[in-house]
Amino acid sequence: MYAWLLPFLLLLTLSVPESDPAQQQADEQFIRTIFDESLVNGQAYPWLDFLANQIGGRLSGSPQAAMAVEWSKQVMDTLQLDSVWLQPVMVPHWVRGPKEVGRFFSPDHYGVEEVNVCALGGSVGTGPAGITAEVVEVHSYEDLERFGEDSIKGRIVFYNVPMEQRHISTFHAYGGCVGYRWAGAGKAAEFGAAGMLIRSLSHTIDEHPHTGSMAYPEGSKKIPAAAIATSHAELLSEALKTDPHLKFHLRMQCDNLPEKLSYNVIGEIRGSEYPEEIILIGGHLDSWDNGDGAHDDGAGCVQSMEVLSILKKLNYRPKRTIRCVLFMNEENGLRGAKAYAEESNRLGEYHMAAIETDAGGFTPQGFGISDTLPVVEQIRQWAPLFLPYNIFLFREGGGGADINQLKSQGTTLIGLQPDSQRYFDYHHASTDTFDKVNRRELQLGAAAITALVYLLDKYGIQR
Amino acid sequence: MYAWLLPFLLLLTLSVPESDPAQQQADEQFIRTIFDESLVNGQAYPWLDFLANQIGGRLSGSPQAAMAVEWSKQVMDTLQLDSVWLQPVMVPHWVRGPKEVGRFFSPDHYGVEEVNVCALGGSVGTGPAGITAEVVEVHSYEDLERFGEDSIKGRIVFYNVPMEQRHISTFHAYGGCVGYRWAGAGKAAEFGAAGMLIRSLSHTIDEHPHTGSMAYPEGSKKIPAAAIATSHAELLSEALKTDPHLKFHLRMQCDNLPEKLSYNVIGEIRGSEYPEEIILIGGHLDSWDNGDGAHDDGAGCVQSMEVLSILKKLNYRPKRTIRCVLFMNEENGLRGAKAYAEESNRLGEYHMAAIETDAGGFTPQGFGISDTLPVVEQIRQWAPLFLPYNIFLFREGGGGADINQLKSQGTTLIGLQPDSQRYFDYHHASTDTFDKVNRRELQLGAAAITALVYLLDKYGIQR
Repeated sequence: MYAWLLPFLLLLTLSVPESDPAQQQADEQFIRTIFDESLVNGQAYPWLDFLANQIGGRLSGSPQAAMAVEWSKQVMDTLQLDSVWLQPVMVPHWVRGPKEVGRFFSPDHYGVEEVNVCALGGSVGTGPAGITAEVVEVHSYEDLERFGEDSIKGRIVFYNVPMEQRHISTFHAYGGCVGYRWAGAGKAAEFGAAGMLIRSLSHTIDEHPHTGSMAYPEGSKKIPAAAIATSHAELLSEALKTDPHLKFHLRMQCDNLPEKLSYNVIGEIRGSEYPEEIILIGGHLDSWDNGDGAHDDGAGCVQSMEVLSILKKLNYRPKRTIRCVLFMNEENGLRGAKAYAEESNRLGEYHMAAIETDAGGFTPQGFGISDTLPVVEQIRQWAPLFLPYNIFLFREGGGGADINQLKSQGTTLIGLQPDSQRYFDYHHASTDTFDKVNRRELQLGAAAITALVYLLDKYGIQR
Repeated sequence: MYAWLLPFLLLLTLSVPESDPAQQQADEQFIRTIFDESLVNGQAYPWLDFLANQIGGRLSGSPQAAMAVEWSKQVMDTLQLDSVWLQPVMVPHWVRGPKEVGRFFSPDHYGVEEVNVCALGGSVGTGPAGITAEVVEVHSYEDLERFGEDSIKGRIVFYNVPMEQRHISTFHAYGGCVGYRWAGAGKAAEFGAAGMLIRSLSHTIDEHPHTGSMAYPEGSKKIPAAAIATSHAELLSEALKTDPHLKFHLRMQCDNLPEKLSYNVIGEIRGSEYPEEIILIGGHLDSWDNGDGAHDDGAGCVQSMEVLSILKKLNYRPKRTIRCVLFMNEENGLRGAKAYAEESNRLGEYHMAAIETDAGGFTPQGFGISDTLPVVEQIRQWAPLFLPYNIFLFREGGGGADINQLKSQGTTLIGLQPDSQRYFDYHHASTDTFDKVNRRELQLGAAAITALVYLLDKYGIQR
């Protein structure tokens, strides 16, 4: 009986009687102005052009990350905010080194095939000579158990787990595979593997490997871990069928260097009535190094700054404090988010709500909201104000890796949900570049967040 | 009071009590199967690869259009339909000739600037020597009147009317400008203009001119008409400010040749209970010649064939006749659609519903429906079945240029509405190519139409 629709039905029946017509009209008009401003005069897109094309990929600890900190502070300095500051944080400093080499050879069947691989972030290297070993293809941890140490010892474990195409949200499919990337090397090492390869986490078959973070369990042997492009994963799998003893050569000279000092970049407009109630908007300033990090998460950074910019340009005086935080080191450590939450807790701050935008600069579809059902329903009451902009999703559950650190403050955690279909074509790959971002889609996302911030500021959250 | 939401509210309150739970569950499950099939095993994307990359742009009367007819018939022949046939139709045969030349020169100020232009479809050429004339920039027909014959005679009229960024649907913005492309040459000729230039109809500032159809009014003087890339329109406008007497050189050798024989390509599954009630799905097989017509409307063609393919693969036996029509010559004449409707009327056929997909292969957001309000509300009752796929729009008003010819049969006219933000970046330009189409977005669109066809077939329309 469409039971899953009931909350939606509820929101509509609730919202109509509860609202004051004059306020509703004022809200409709102000939100229209926000979207107009973003679509016509928006700065997010030219800002992203600079961040992606002039600075580029900005791995934690890299010179580009330092440039991004300086540049985004400069941008915020132009917005006439009440305060702009840098929050120091020590970050991991992992470096990729020269381009990785992946190659397999099977004299009887295939000859030599060069394949595109990239080290996973945090992996140890292979040494300059690389490693050469047979490959054991698995599709799950159960496979690993079944093969056992005898079959795995000294070999490279190849996790060939394709992203599920059936899920409508591509993040759902990502969730089904990312565990292998994060923990697969450690599991393989338990069985004595010499290395680990993972099929890139992408819905598309192409030649671009997708990196991402991994970790070794405490005390485990550290084996090199790399992602292989989806097309080459299929090629390797095919080759293994006819020649299970083919040899794979993997060479990568990545390294974990000593930690470096970096910063979260923060700007805020102080609230006029309830300055102690903070509404945070943010994304992460660091990115992987292979692309220019335009979607992940340059888009989220420029959208977050755009929220403040639009509110200032429209002369909006918030009752509550609106704070933009560009977090450092989301990709491989979350150090920025942890430092931010720690300092905020130490100061006794209260974040009423936090909105993260870290799902790409695509057409916004709505928001995912993590809080009690009554709070989710308060926010859902505003849904009709977003429908003219084709924003229709107000899902229970959501947030983001950075803002989730604020949970202990009882903060309402909200994630922007853009159309997810293309995200994993680019995510963590060399294809995540500025040309993949559409100006209007990016600016619509910025406007959607601004509209929600406006409503959160005006009406607050009743707990 | 959110009055515009009432129909939506109505649909939800109506749909829940009216439905039979067992049927609802069956519908939910079958629609889930349709989406799974399209996302996992869909043929639309590889078909589009062939149509766009192996055949390419397919202007009416061109060898590529003839190839597309033969190829799409071959594809339909593999689908085990009840009938596949070609419907002959005479089409215009306009040819672009060698690449157009656009250039302006202003010795004192700019020197020579080469600019990217392309002839509008249907335009006469300039002759091999081209024309060279001063430029009168206008922003409306009112400007044209104000300048008057004295200022315009012998000059080139330059319609510099940017697409409105505020509209959320980009088609709305297109609607505000396309009149100048279609009729602007005729209007300019009334004042003695020697030629017509129009700023390309695109939301993006780039160097790609966008073509499209135009026509001369009966008896008017035929002057050459071309589109100029948006970035070059801005450059020309800037130059005219300092040098209003700069000279523009336009050379294009396009020509209208004698009409050619071509075809609509049609395939159908005959209905088991009401074969005389036809549900049509279609797109147009012709495209412009500068890109490969991937979004416009290769996407619509492969999605339409995919509907039949999915229904066959799922062993669905329709009660009504499901017919796929790939119309010829939508872009510059609508001859295919007119011939189809004429023949259909002659045979006394009845199209219960017709769905056109001609708005690009982007993430589907819903449908636009043209019929009486009670019929629109019947279809809106199915909206909850589409929400799990983020398909939420069931708008009053919609259809498509081809299926609108069937209006006299009392047909329910429905247009698929994909996300429109990127459409006019590519529309009618050399950038409308296969690499701009995302597999999942295309396949989701095909699944959305298939689901609607299934419901239309199962429940019919009560008039």
